[in-house]
Amino acid sequence: MNAAFIIFDQMTALDFVGFYDPLTRLKSMDFMPNFHWQICSFCEDVSDTQDLRFDPDSFKQPLHDFDLLVIPGGYGSRSLQHNDEFISWIKTAAPVPLKASVCSGSLLLGAAGFLKGKRATTHPKAYDELARYCGEVSDQRVVDEGDIVTARGVTSSIDLGLHLVERLAGKDVCSEIATQMDYPYYSS
Amino acid sequence: MNAAFIIFDQMTALDFVGFYDPLTRLKSMDFMPNFHWQICSFCEDVSDTQDLRFDPDSFKQPLHDFDLLVIPGGYGSRSLQHNDEFISWIKTAAPVPLKASVCSGSLLLGAAGFLKGKRATTHPKAYDELARYCGEVSDQRVVDEGDIVTARGVTSSIDLGLHLVERLAGKDVCSEIATQMDYPYYSS
Repeated sequence: MNAAFIIFDQMTALDFVGFYDPLTRLKSMDFMPNFHWQICSFCEDVSDTQDLRFDPDSFKQPLHDFDLLVIPGGYGSRSLQHNDEFISWIKTAAPVPLKASVCSGSLLLGAAGFLKGKRATTHPKAYDELARYCGEVSDQRVVDEGDIVTARGVTSSIDLGLHLVERLAGKDVCSEIATQMDYPYYSS
Repeated sequence: MNAAFIIFDQMTALDFVGFYDPLTRLKSMDFMPNFHWQICSFCEDVSDTQDLRFDPDSFKQPLHDFDLLVIPGGYGSRSLQHNDEFISWIKTAAPVPLKASVCSGSLLLGAAGFLKGKRATTHPKAYDELARYCGEVSDQRVVDEGDIVTARGVTSSIDLGLHLVERLAGKDVCSEIATQMDYPYYSS
């Protein structure tokens, strides 16, 4: 299992770290020793909106060979959704069987055409903006459409990560990871 | 208001980013334009337990002039609590009027002597280890003893951040920030 965790300049750090924590515990807690991930970016320099720097493992690498892709949101997504080069790169993820987003990250999946006809969600303040890209905007915290899973605002990244853990490794593993994270709020 | 956000090698990324998000919104959402922070480390190279790198703004800088100090937990804290050089550095925060920790970060505040006679909390798996440092171990998600606030496991970092926001800027600001973070679980 090889996951691509996308980062981009002017992302929200918690959108990224929220799903990163539970998913990487699949490996660190020995539930899926073969769970590997790569932090993928389109540019070399990535900071969150408050200048906290994040180092990518690769940049401009095509995404088609991954088994899972997760993309956070944040202020940078507002312009990146209209950036043809960036969206062409995201489109290389078309064959990835499971793609997920947090917050305004769904605008990027949407701009790549991955949400057509599907239910999806985003930060409540971006519902109108998301509507152009998807079949139906939902206000659920996590919306699972099979090959595409979208999560609502910032902290719903934790729920998304746990939802993906549950899909990949089952309810019991998800429950053990949520307990280790001291997160009593997840419901499947 | 100058805050020191402590990072250390082998910390848990979400322990740090969980409080960083709501606290930095005091500035980014214009509630406290004079809220400044510095990411402080005792060593130059800092990664979380899964090799995600974090860049400090300063290292080995004495901590006594800050108004607020927040320290995360993580695997590295288990040995750092016995590292005299590191704990001497944390002790330079003695005059800081508000000190806070997440998860096993309380072992570091404890080793510096800041928890003597006080109620405190940590990750449920570290309750026994914390007992030697404090007056009483509590299982509350956030324990506020005035000048010292400790939070329980990993995700309680978000609750700690919102609790500190509420102390610094009031309930209404806290509520607006929690809404922007899409976090419906905080209760003061």
